[in-house]
Formats: sequence, structure tokens, C-alpha cells
Amino acid sequence: MQPTIELPEAWKAVSQPPSLFCRYEFKSYAQTREFLDGLAVLSEETRLFPDLGFARTFVNITLRGRDGAAPGVAEIDYARRAAVLAAAWTGP
Amino acid sequence: MQPTIELPEAWKAVSQPPSLFCRYEFKSYAQTREFLDGLAVLSEETRLFPDLGFARTFVNITLRGRDGAAPGVAEIDYARRAAVLAAAWTGP
Repeated sequence: MQPTIELPEAWKAVSQPPSLFCRYEFKSYAQTREFLDGLAVLSEETRLFPDLGFARTFVNITLRGRDGAAPGVAEIDYARRAAVLAAAWTGP
Repeated sequence: MQPTIELPEAWKAVSQPPSLFCRYEFKSYAQTREFLDGLAVLSEETRLFPDLGFARTFVNITLRGRDGAAPGVAEIDYARRAAVLAAAWTGP
């Protein structure tokens, strides 16, 4: 049986194209920028470059697998680390 | 007669939703980040916050008018200044 992937809160698996998706909302442009800077560091380290859509107070993250494959362990790890980053501004 | 707007190179006017659009391609993630940082300074100064979509080596800019109106002088000025910024990496 295909193991179900444990995704961080607010993340969801999209089937077409196979990817992971999440939308984070922030209280200010400054927070949005800080989060994006954090994701940039994560991308430099992991060499994973999600499609990012953002404006003043939201960031949409779309993470595809390499070369069109389904997202795998590396992408899920990226999602988890992005969730930890986001919690600094969107946490309880 | 409605004056035709002179848009910078690579920019186009979109009718639905009324907005200005441009896609810039870069040679590296570092260049993409530098351009995005430049747009952030432009947004802080002009208080215009376009919808930006980017990944490793491209940035899509969508500039709507305020409150759903058609893009006006302020948006066209933003587009011109973004084009000047981009020319640093995408110029002839």
C-alpha cells in the first residue's frame, strides 16, 4: 500500500501537476519579505526552487518533484522546514 | 481618443483583469534574488505591491490598478522603473 505522506499543517498534495502546495498569509509586507528571505536560504541549501507567488501579505508555494516526478522526501522536508519558518509569524 | 500608453519593452497591457504584465528571465538564482530585492525597494517607496511569481530564473510581474481600477500613471511608472532595474541583468 502506498504510504500516506505526513504533510505539515496547511500543506496539501496536488495531483495535476504532481506537487505540494501551501499558502501563508502575513500581517505586513516586512513579514512577507522576511519569510521569502528565509525560503531563499532554504533553496540555496537544498537546491530546491519552488514556484513562489506573492504580493504584499501572502506567499503561495508550489513544490514540484524533480524533472516532473511526484514530490518526494526532499520536497516534503522542504515543506516541513518552510512550515517551521512560517510559524514564526503565523504561529498560535 | 484614449491616449495609447507607452509601455517599457517586454511589458504588455492585459484586459482581464485590467493589469500590466511582464516576465523577466535571469541567468542565475542570485540574479533573480537581486532583482526581487530591487522590486521590494521599489514597492516600499511607491507602496505598489504587484503580484510576483518567481522560481529559480524567472520573475512574472502582474500590476493591477488600485482597488480593481485599470493600471494608471503610478503603475506605468513602476513598470518603467522595474524595466530599468531588469536591464542590469537582461540588457543588450
